[in-house]
Amino acid sequence: MSNLFFLNEIKPLDKEIMRKAKERLDNLAKPIGSLGNLEQMAIKLSGITGQMYNKLEKKAVVIMCSDNGVCEEGIASAPQIVTYTQTTNFSRGITGVCVLAKHEGADVIAVDVGVKGIIDSPSILSRKIRMGTSNIAKGEAMTKEEAIKAIDIGFDLVRELKDKGYKILGTGEMGIGNTTTSSALLIALTDCEIDEAVGYGAGLTLEQFNKKKEVIKRSIAINKPDKNDPIDVLHKLGGFDIAALVGMYLGAAYYRMPIVVDGFISVVAALIAYRLNSLAREFMFPSHVSKENGYNIAIDELNLRPILNLDMRLGEGSGCPLAFNIIEAATAVINNMATFEEAKVDVENYKDFWRNDEDF
Amino acid sequence: MSNLFFLNEIKPLDKEIMRKAKERLDNLAKPIGSLGNLEQMAIKLSGITGQMYNKLEKKAVVIMCSDNGVCEEGIASAPQIVTYTQTTNFSRGITGVCVLAKHEGADVIAVDVGVKGIIDSPSILSRKIRMGTSNIAKGEAMTKEEAIKAIDIGFDLVRELKDKGYKILGTGEMGIGNTTTSSALLIALTDCEIDEAVGYGAGLTLEQFNKKKEVIKRSIAINKPDKNDPIDVLHKLGGFDIAALVGMYLGAAYYRMPIVVDGFISVVAALIAYRLNSLAREFMFPSHVSKENGYNIAIDELNLRPILNLDMRLGEGSGCPLAFNIIEAATAVINNMATFEEAKVDVENYKDFWRNDEDF
Repeated sequence: MSNLFFLNEIKPLDKEIMRKAKERLDNLAKPIGSLGNLEQMAIKLSGITGQMYNKLEKKAVVIMCSDNGVCEEGIASAPQIVTYTQTTNFSRGITGVCVLAKHEGADVIAVDVGVKGIIDSPSILSRKIRMGTSNIAKGEAMTKEEAIKAIDIGFDLVRELKDKGYKILGTGEMGIGNTTTSSALLIALTDCEIDEAVGYGAGLTLEQFNKKKEVIKRSIAINKPDKNDPIDVLHKLGGFDIAALVGMYLGAAYYRMPIVVDGFISVVAALIAYRLNSLAREFMFPSHVSKENGYNIAIDELNLRPILNLDMRLGEGSGCPLAFNIIEAATAVINNMATFEEAKVDVENYKDFWRNDEDF
Repeated sequence: MSNLFFLNEIKPLDKEIMRKAKERLDNLAKPIGSLGNLEQMAIKLSGITGQMYNKLEKKAVVIMCSDNGVCEEGIASAPQIVTYTQTTNFSRGITGVCVLAKHEGADVIAVDVGVKGIIDSPSILSRKIRMGTSNIAKGEAMTKEEAIKAIDIGFDLVRELKDKGYKILGTGEMGIGNTTTSSALLIALTDCEIDEAVGYGAGLTLEQFNKKKEVIKRSIAINKPDKNDPIDVLHKLGGFDIAALVGMYLGAAYYRMPIVVDGFISVVAALIAYRLNSLAREFMFPSHVSKENGYNIAIDELNLRPILNLDMRLGEGSGCPLAFNIIEAATAVINNMATFEEAKVDVENYKDFWRNDEDF
């Protein structure tokens, strides 16, 4: 058990190299700032790695997979076994995130942190805490110790992947019922209205939707989470998937790796990491605007601006590979574009060729 | 001279193959519609090409380059020679769009439709009409015949590129002063307020900005464009770059090629193509939300939704390569994701391994 030592050891971005990166970008042959967020991302990457020029060649989407005891309340549109099925399907390369990751040259790393069922696949990392959380409508999802264990799993995985040469990570999740746990966490953390924080998930009927809201209210009432203690909120209402993602965001900040925040569940995990140490947000790159209700509340508190607008709500970290490509484009700009000096050479060379219109 | 015969020969999307594409997408192992706009783009591509499965391997950003006589009014932040310089720089691969296109595996094709100066580079297509338009603050930019000639250039180029195996095209432009001509066109076409349609271009001072607005007002007053006649508006206030882009959008619709609409200038050209034949919009894919004022007026009338949010305002078609990648991701989804049937196999196979939590 780490006791979360790293919470006090995260360092801010390297402002000096960021200043130099901005100076270079302002000298490229284009109106200042005209590449907008591509320039901002290049600067941020410099601040994270401490280097002006970055290459993100090795990339992975990490999918934290686990089950949620609250499923027994009937709050999800899919049967709980789908967590298990899709987790095994990640190893077969046929789910949405796998197809998109392949398109972008990124790896998919599925991690079993608490799937209900025995996963027996060499290509799925086994970090199972137990076979799913307990039902939050009846008590805490997990003990505080289990929450910290899950955070440590995510934290340690970032180091492992950094050691393997990965330069950027994306965050995904698979766990039937995890929009319910995410909404409960969001309400407990922000005191937002339930109608702002709860969505239709993978496709609920109106009746199921009302049930979901009722279950979330009951879960909060029973667990009485302390909104000023993110770990208290997390272990009472979260899932192993979300807790492990919290650990990944903290690991990214500690080990100085850029990390992509994807949909609703991962942005709630990102918010918890941010509440634990506000520097964590400096290492995050948001991918797309999720269609799921509540996403905007979390992304606004994080003060991050998603780059893609695709009305996606699949989860699995499916927006991450697309974001990787755009972030890599930002590195291409700072690495490969010509400065004014380089680009202007031709002006001088060709000056003599200028003629009046009539000469043409 | 074509007399724009193609305006009456554009056919709508193939609804039958689109229905089949949607059917396949709804059968993929994910909640229905959860890949949002990626699914919509895959369906639209099917309707354009008439095939459910598409591969966009060969891609190009076409940059229409030309000068604008209105520059003599002092409405641009950069000297006019920059059109010439950057046009030659496109052949050197060092501008913003070149770097981004290389990153995405797309070609850049620069076309001289009216650059002031002699371009002597084998890698720049020579389609020069004349050395820049006339000053719109004093009279029409070009004759009606020249406008149609420019449209034909764009139209014919789409066929040429289709014959060379390109599967998708992006639209860029280079021409100092072309946010002025674009704003003038937009106001003439839509009667919008001048403050909604005019922006700071590449970086004007407040004084220059006010000058730009005054010049635009004067240009419209002098030319008296007929808002119900897009060709009249185009030849009086446009540029050769914009007219050639109009031709490309019409060519894309006629030759059934997907085409990416990029920033402010290209969206104004897209609007003119749409006004000439409303079916043209069915073939357009918008890339990013431009920061330039007026962009939203045009994209809203086109009823298109950009996929990227990057605060870019460089022009050159620089958003196109990034959009290509996302549109290709849409093809990966429909081509490579598993259907429910394929994905569910494991559920049956692994059923026996299910245990109670206590067994773990």
